[in-house]
Amino acid sequence: MRKEGVFITFEGADGSGKTTQISLLDEYLCGKKRKTLLTREPGAGMLGARIRELLLNYEGHISPNCESFLFLADRAQHVDNMIKPALADGKIVLCDRYVDSTIAYQGYGRQLDLDRILFLNNLATSNLKPDLTIVFDVDVETAFSRIGNVKDRMESEGKEFFNRVRNGYLEIAKQEPDRVKVLASSDSIEVVHKRVVALVESL
Amino acid sequence: MRKEGVFITFEGADGSGKTTQISLLDEYLCGKKRKTLLTREPGAGMLGARIRELLLNYEGHISPNCESFLFLADRAQHVDNMIKPALADGKIVLCDRYVDSTIAYQGYGRQLDLDRILFLNNLATSNLKPDLTIVFDVDVETAFSRIGNVKDRMESEGKEFFNRVRNGYLEIAKQEPDRVKVLASSDSIEVVHKRVVALVESL
Repeated sequence: MRKEGVFITFEGADGSGKTTQISLLDEYLCGKKRKTLLTREPGAGMLGARIRELLLNYEGHISPNCESFLFLADRAQHVDNMIKPALADGKIVLCDRYVDSTIAYQGYGRQLDLDRILFLNNLATSNLKPDLTIVFDVDVETAFSRIGNVKDRMESEGKEFFNRVRNGYLEIAKQEPDRVKVLASSDSIEVVHKRVVALVESL
Repeated sequence: MRKEGVFITFEGADGSGKTTQISLLDEYLCGKKRKTLLTREPGAGMLGARIRELLLNYEGHISPNCESFLFLADRAQHVDNMIKPALADGKIVLCDRYVDSTIAYQGYGRQLDLDRILFLNNLATSNLKPDLTIVFDVDVETAFSRIGNVKDRMESEGKEFFNRVRNGYLEIAKQEPDRVKVLASSDSIEVVHKRVVALVESL
């Protein structure tokens, strides 16, 4: 399948503003009459929703190994039946979280085997890489103040975990500087939006 | 987790008589007051049943890549939440189809990448291997006559596929002669049952 569209992923911690920014970019592109697909991981699409429902509502214990294969199944279906067809149709695909989230959270945050994560995700995505990935970088205090109530559930190790994830994203950007761009998301929504548009227009 | 029980898998083509034989062995062992777990793949357990339901009833198209990860999720859950606890509890686990089925059918039958299949299944099972695997070997004519109506759905390539699967099982047995034993299943049910009992008693 020849890739005609453009694949852009939005990455960063909760509270980094990425979900706000992806919506603003989608509006901007639609205003320019560009065809887009705005999507997210995990749980996009009908089968993804079913898998998510299974994960959330299952009354028994689900083994971590089983869970990671269910997430891979979700990702494979998302790539094969939503992202690739949209790209073949010439659309700009905007995806809220993708493989880099798994690398940052599972690999750097939870310190699971990075090679294994990469290998499995390359299989699940058939090696489909984004043309552009924007990492919304935010420090722990800003992020925690933005996510509000959720902060209460976070222990002191929450901050350490957050910083490992953040450093993971920065490491990914260092390794793939052409694909991955880091934006400081501590500025106002409008300022960050303009930077996002500039990155996308330069594609 | 220290393994206390015994893990025995039954393999072979449909029509090889393995499902009849696994029930007979289970009866025999229960008669000897041994604690057993009689189970099967795919779709054992509650989560396995849900995944199977998802695969069968989903109204859209499921990508082959997604499907293979769903099967791996099913296998991981089966191993982690049913087989390993039963072994830890000292039971004799009798499982109708396991990893060797995937190797024989997907690897040899469908000629998909064997290394990939092995790698993924080692992950899904955390390398849990059976103590004994009995392959019920049957020629294509006997198998096709036993499965009756299903035969009508099989094309001429059905026989070629069958023979690739059969040779796959024989290849596995050649590579792991200590674990994998081949029984000719063309004899009477009673004769084959006696051979099964002899193999199991020798453990």
